[in-house]
Amino acid sequence: MAGKVQYFAGLDLGGTFLKYALGDHQGAILFKDKLPSRADQSGEQVFQVMFQAVRNLVQEAKKNGGELSAIGVGSPGAIDFEKGRLVGRTPNIKKWADTDIRGTLQDEFSIPVWVDNDANIMALAESRQGAARGVKNVICATLGTGIGGGILIDGELYRGSHFAGAEIGHMMIVHNGLPCNCGGRGCFELYTAAPAILREYVSRMAANKKTVPEHVTTKIVFQRAAEGEHEANEAIDMAIDYMGTGFASLVNIFNPEMIVIGGGVADAGDAFIARIHKAIELKAMKPAMKGVKVKRAVLGNDAGCVGAISLALEMLQKTNKVVASLI
Amino acid sequence: MAGKVQYFAGLDLGGTFLKYALGDHQGAILFKDKLPSRADQSGEQVFQVMFQAVRNLVQEAKKNGGELSAIGVGSPGAIDFEKGRLVGRTPNIKKWADTDIRGTLQDEFSIPVWVDNDANIMALAESRQGAARGVKNVICATLGTGIGGGILIDGELYRGSHFAGAEIGHMMIVHNGLPCNCGGRGCFELYTAAPAILREYVSRMAANKKTVPEHVTTKIVFQRAAEGEHEANEAIDMAIDYMGTGFASLVNIFNPEMIVIGGGVADAGDAFIARIHKAIELKAMKPAMKGVKVKRAVLGNDAGCVGAISLALEMLQKTNKVVASLI
Repeated sequence: MAGKVQYFAGLDLGGTFLKYALGDHQGAILFKDKLPSRADQSGEQVFQVMFQAVRNLVQEAKKNGGELSAIGVGSPGAIDFEKGRLVGRTPNIKKWADTDIRGTLQDEFSIPVWVDNDANIMALAESRQGAARGVKNVICATLGTGIGGGILIDGELYRGSHFAGAEIGHMMIVHNGLPCNCGGRGCFELYTAAPAILREYVSRMAANKKTVPEHVTTKIVFQRAAEGEHEANEAIDMAIDYMGTGFASLVNIFNPEMIVIGGGVADAGDAFIARIHKAIELKAMKPAMKGVKVKRAVLGNDAGCVGAISLALEMLQKTNKVVASLI
Repeated sequence: MAGKVQYFAGLDLGGTFLKYALGDHQGAILFKDKLPSRADQSGEQVFQVMFQAVRNLVQEAKKNGGELSAIGVGSPGAIDFEKGRLVGRTPNIKKWADTDIRGTLQDEFSIPVWVDNDANIMALAESRQGAARGVKNVICATLGTGIGGGILIDGELYRGSHFAGAEIGHMMIVHNGLPCNCGGRGCFELYTAAPAILREYVSRMAANKKTVPEHVTTKIVFQRAAEGEHEANEAIDMAIDYMGTGFASLVNIFNPEMIVIGGGVADAGDAFIARIHKAIELKAMKPAMKGVKVKRAVLGNDAGCVGAISLALEMLQKTNKVVASLI
């Protein structure tokens, strides 16, 4: 590697697209693109897409006078970070159970690969290049169809003893409440993520004998709330009240410096985030809440690639340090 | 200090007694005793009691051919660990608000002092010398009049950004439930600690027009449950069900290796702990719960002194390391 500039590949695997990007040693993105991920086909097809993406990045690295030094990957599902592979299945990608992502990519490209779940990758991205840049203790929540959680303690991702932690969406905030796919009941995400807002909106509209648009989205609900529609505002108020309960609990447990909220629901904007902040303040313990900032995630669609690049470059640095200390 | 054997003082300050003990460099207790803490009088009185205890330990250290090297203190209330002082008031000790515990003791004895809150001290004790010896990721809960929480991550106490974290008793498990002194609603401790069990028992007895002993305690409720009393069993079942919700949430968040349960309520015994374990398994995510042990705290009344000694000796080692690296 003598003299060559080091570049890093970030892959963000989703059910529809594989987003990918080239980053430099500071995590800045030099190039990005996406390919259909073919997640509805097979694991082998998905790997062909990933190979193609990395080959493109190898070329981009050359164009920039350097070479690809490591690959970072964000994937849906539970990831064994140590082994770089899935644990069990993920609903988003067919035939992807227990897949050895690291092994397959390393066999193909002979450079180090690190893999983490997409919620952790998003949290890493926001803490390195986004809303929580330079902040050490952060709770990240991606509000979409569920809640993806990432927890940074002293600047590092907290993954749990066996990489199964940080499931803040499955903190139970309603004792013996709605049954959840996770096996629990009354989980945080069941009352705050997009389906909860839509469920509440549809039921309130039905109760008032009003018609709901056929393909209603949270975006539409937020628009209608802004236009003053009563039911839309009630559905959003409900979600915010539950968010107050859940995030205040996390504040009492972690006493973080910042909560970062991302995902589709957060696109509702800064006023929405400010209302969540107030709802948290109402319920959190004062000493634990003191100085806690609540911010909207800023990296949007780039978060996955930015986080994967950060993961690759930081892990390579750490590995090299360990190797150096052994010489 | 050349050649002299190092000993450590552990003080465990409570509303009724100050327990204190002398420990060696491995945390083993050589001597222990207690004094009335005079917490109902004034902060100055409490310090006179602490001074007396430390003077006794100085003598004990001499008897054992060494000297006192550092003091560890466990205190009720919120503690600023960096400064070694209280933040605000504690209901257990009169006129103790914002007290500078470290400063006062250091002025008197001219050796290093570290102070932490009693729940953290208990968690440290169990992880160093008790049920969680050698375990790196542990959730400790002391069930008494409330829940005292201690969280160990990678073997170290997690205190939060400003020492206001680990308040697991104030994780809200009943959205907009019972109002709590902390400012929140539906807090974990309101449904699981001793007052909750007694409240439930008394109300069920009243509903069935049965008389309750005048000074009923959880101990009596557990005895009566063992004797087959319906209402006592129902009250305990209720608390266990709520414990399942709260601890399962903590499992999903932390994916710990072990949960240690102490305090008066845990004295109900191993069968009670086994039932709590089952209630957690019922609600926690399988990957997060895999291999998680649920154990009863084993140090009992000694936990405070053992933890305070561990704190003192470990902090002195760390400080000396830092000093050595600066030379």
